Amino acid sequence: MAETRKDRSYLVSLIRERQTVLTVGLDSDSQRLPDIIKGDILAFNRAIIEATRDVCVAYKINFAFYEALGLKGWEILGKTIAHIGDQHFIIADAKRGDIGNTSEMYAKAVFDHLGCDAITVNPYMGSDSVKPFLRDGKWVIILAYTSNTGSSDFQKLKLENGKKLYEAVMETTSTYGNAANTMYVIGATHPEELKQIRANFPEHFFLIPGVGAQGGDLDAVLKAGLNKDGGLLINASRSIIYASSGSDFAEKGREEAERMNVVMRKYVDKKS
Amino acid sequence: MAETRKDRSYLVSLIRERQTVLTVGLDSDSQRLPDIIKGDILAFNRAIIEATRDVCVAYKINFAFYEALGLKGWEILGKTIAHIGDQHFIIADAKRGDIGNTSEMYAKAVFDHLGCDAITVNPYMGSDSVKPFLRDGKWVIILAYTSNTGSSDFQKLKLENGKKLYEAVMETTSTYGNAANTMYVIGATHPEELKQIRANFPEHFFLIPGVGAQGGDLDAVLKAGLNKDGGLLINASRSIIYASSGSDFAEKGREEAERMNVVMRKYVDKKS
Repeated sequence: MAETRKDRSYLVSLIRERQTVLTVGLDSDSQRLPDIIKGDILAFNRAIIEATRDVCVAYKINFAFYEALGLKGWEILGKTIAHIGDQHFIIADAKRGDIGNTSEMYAKAVFDHLGCDAITVNPYMGSDSVKPFLRDGKWVIILAYTSNTGSSDFQKLKLENGKKLYEAVMETTSTYGNAANTMYVIGATHPEELKQIRANFPEHFFLIPGVGAQGGDLDAVLKAGLNKDGGLLINASRSIIYASSGSDFAEKGREEAERMNVVMRKYVDKKS
Repeated sequence: MAETRKDRSYLVSLIRERQTVLTVGLDSDSQRLPDIIKGDILAFNRAIIEATRDVCVAYKINFAFYEALGLKGWEILGKTIAHIGDQHFIIADAKRGDIGNTSEMYAKAVFDHLGCDAITVNPYMGSDSVKPFLRDGKWVIILAYTSNTGSSDFQKLKLENGKKLYEAVMETTSTYGNAANTMYVIGATHPEELKQIRANFPEHFFLIPGVGAQGGDLDAVLKAGLNKDGGLLINASRSIIYASSGSDFAEKGREEAERMNVVMRKYVDKKS
């Protein structure tokens, strides 16, 4: 269980120390593991974590991939978090959100039981679905403008007042907490919008999925999104964890992380 | 595991046979159990299920309450579903939704692994987040206009074209599937809007939370929402499962269910 308080100053110091905003996404799919791992997801996660520990600041755990395994998956999820330990920011990528008393239960699961530092939350149900996740020393990461193609179905809809839905979501939800306990998910596939979003929200951290397998441009995201504190957590999942299907999977994963870090260092150095 | 195909005709026949659209919500909170149950949630669920089996058509399982217990909670969740068996429609109230490959994993968890018949899904991420849940013989229940106060924060926002966001969500997502595999969540706290929604979507089933502890009016919902096939699943959780904190909790829960069924029969009789 993570015991360190992963507040904003902790996160900023991690980024300065490691000169990266890289987040490794553990979307570990039992169907895609290297043969050598013989279907043992926990062993796979441990190997990836050991290989990438010093080249990333955060791990993002995609809950769906563990839930798909039932009881065994939840056991692996807990053990994976324990293995990460105390020197990284741990994101529960669970996309939760429900009426107040139910969101409280989800918060309990992810923060108290699993010891994660942050959770991704879907804002569609509004204030009482988001606020129960705002806890001292913990973070809520609200879906704003996601990386997938479906993000244009509703998030980009124009409102009567000329704003887009995701802009209204950010404006309203930013009043629930502050830049020390609230982040936003902004897909790497929208670098132009990211520039505008950063102008409107200079302080907030953004969690950026969509670099790598989904095709987002890393340079463009860094240029548009970094602020003086870093202000980004850029996630790569498949491109790192499946960098090789051979026995060198962890080593190749680390190389891919390092390749991204070379790009990141160009910008993180200058801005933070 | 539920093996029967819970398609539309099955659901309609259940409603005709039992003359009710009652759904019992198993939001079983370890902090609120009767003393006699000594914290044993599975025993509590089994007692509630045995007491209400013949007076409801569906059980809705609120995943948050089980996840909050960690590994043990997932075990109870699986055993609760197994105990419900084959003669009810089983709803995974999990409010999931993510990019395509991840939603597929959530579908796998809930349909393949747990054997549920339906899952509640949050539409904010659009088409590729919802479609992976559309499976032969299974149902997706899309959040449209929820029962909580936060539902007015975004769901009611007026779009440029004059429609409200929840109306756009229903219009767009209704093209993903059809009235035999898609339902909508409409809160009992909006009976006026329900009337209009029913006029626009005469065939779809609606899952209606918010009667009971949240204060929705049962008569108003039935009048506004029923169609020739029933077309509603009206959920009550706290008002039934916590009807008594004494040793008569199951019996009192059944009485509360019966009290609701007396109201339901007035309308279900006439319309179906």
